[in-house]
Amino acid sequence: MSYPIKSVNIIGSGNVATQLTLKLHQLGIQINQVFSVSIENATTLAKKVGSSPINDLNKLTSADLNLLMIKDDLIEKVATHPNLINSFLAHTSGSISMDALKANRRGVFYPLQTLTKDKTAKWEEIPLLIEASVEKDKSGLLELAERISKVVKEVDSEKRKHIHLAAVFVSNFINHLLVIGEDILNNKDMDFDILKPLIFEQVLKIKDHQPIKIQTGPAKRGDQKIINEHLNLLSDQPEYAAIYDLLSKSIKKRHGDEL
Amino acid sequence: MSYPIKSVNIIGSGNVATQLTLKLHQLGIQINQVFSVSIENATTLAKKVGSSPINDLNKLTSADLNLLMIKDDLIEKVATHPNLINSFLAHTSGSISMDALKANRRGVFYPLQTLTKDKTAKWEEIPLLIEASVEKDKSGLLELAERISKVVKEVDSEKRKHIHLAAVFVSNFINHLLVIGEDILNNKDMDFDILKPLIFEQVLKIKDHQPIKIQTGPAKRGDQKIINEHLNLLSDQPEYAAIYDLLSKSIKKRHGDEL
Repeated sequence: MSYPIKSVNIIGSGNVATQLTLKLHQLGIQINQVFSVSIENATTLAKKVGSSPINDLNKLTSADLNLLMIKDDLIEKVATHPNLINSFLAHTSGSISMDALKANRRGVFYPLQTLTKDKTAKWEEIPLLIEASVEKDKSGLLELAERISKVVKEVDSEKRKHIHLAAVFVSNFINHLLVIGEDILNNKDMDFDILKPLIFEQVLKIKDHQPIKIQTGPAKRGDQKIINEHLNLLSDQPEYAAIYDLLSKSIKKRHGDEL
Repeated sequence: MSYPIKSVNIIGSGNVATQLTLKLHQLGIQINQVFSVSIENATTLAKKVGSSPINDLNKLTSADLNLLMIKDDLIEKVATHPNLINSFLAHTSGSISMDALKANRRGVFYPLQTLTKDKTAKWEEIPLLIEASVEKDKSGLLELAERISKVVKEVDSEKRKHIHLAAVFVSNFINHLLVIGEDILNNKDMDFDILKPLIFEQVLKIKDHQPIKIQTGPAKRGDQKIINEHLNLLSDQPEYAAIYDLLSKSIKKRHGDEL
């Protein structure tokens, strides 16, 4: 085969599969087939890009690249299918090693972003982290990635796992703190909206500042009186009190030299 | 005295004092005096608004309102000064009760935002939370607040403390999670910048969605295998592992009905 990659099979029909398939189609890449265990889901996506839906991997025909975009815990098993082993196969997961794939020609094409089916992804700003077992295939994936995004990086499985771990902190865990903030206000019959200007201002500050340089609050300044009052306010929500306590101690420790 | 408030004394010269004084001056409010224990700091701020600097509260002359914008743990003590007790005195703190002030005419004028001296605050978008002991003074503070911001609310001390507590979660603690994210990447010689598109997309989602509705990640979907791998990756950073563990358990519990 020769590069650039001109045809792709899509294995999966979830959020990442939907958004990436639409983008590949837009770039003029041929989407040969769309597989999903649900033929309805495969059909919905295939229709949007002039492709053929299948729900049986035995029917998979060849393409320059098979993109495996399914749940993490299914990747290793599905990747053993003969039609995938004997092809160029890449997954799109942050936390699964490339070598979970059994194909000789294997790779990773990981978009570092939270995607949803319904909202068109701004692909040009989404970092794409690339890995491949064969040098020529890596060139092919990098070339494809650079047509999609301005931020393309070659990252091995070990580093990618740490990026995914950090992403859990700054994405999933940050969202949970927003849930807690809303819970605290709702408990007192107040609306979460009042916090939004503060949230946006705080987070957008990292455009110009390192997070460590802009830490503020009672824990940072060692204000134990306020910390105790806050723990007291949370006495009927012990899980949130435990989080408050642990994060305050962590802030104090991380900034310990300054106190 | 009669409203609207036409003259103000400023007690303090920190971030909130600086930004609010500049805004009041811009609105045509007369800034009679600026007090700071450091006459240099008082002078720096007073010069910007055509006011007189003092570093001795005994020299304080009368104004329609004295705004006490000093560190939380100093408010109660400073508020006992005779020149403040016998005036209309308001503080700007989120976590201090109005009744920490000893003046008969006392109030709170709390801007729910993180402010810095050097960056001009976008006052029209900053929620202002107002409280006062005397009905007529409350009207005066509300009228002043509405000239400054589009979001003005009357909030009692009890509710304000819960808002401030929620603000610690969504501002100070979120920033600490960003610090942890940067630490994890730096430990592996990677740059924090790669996470920024994800962070902004995740947080800006709350413009259109409740946080509870957009939670994702291994804890939300009950993926214990990935959780264990992540805890393993953090084995040499036990404080961060403890935070990962506690937040994951809290997410699982909060979304328990859905699993």
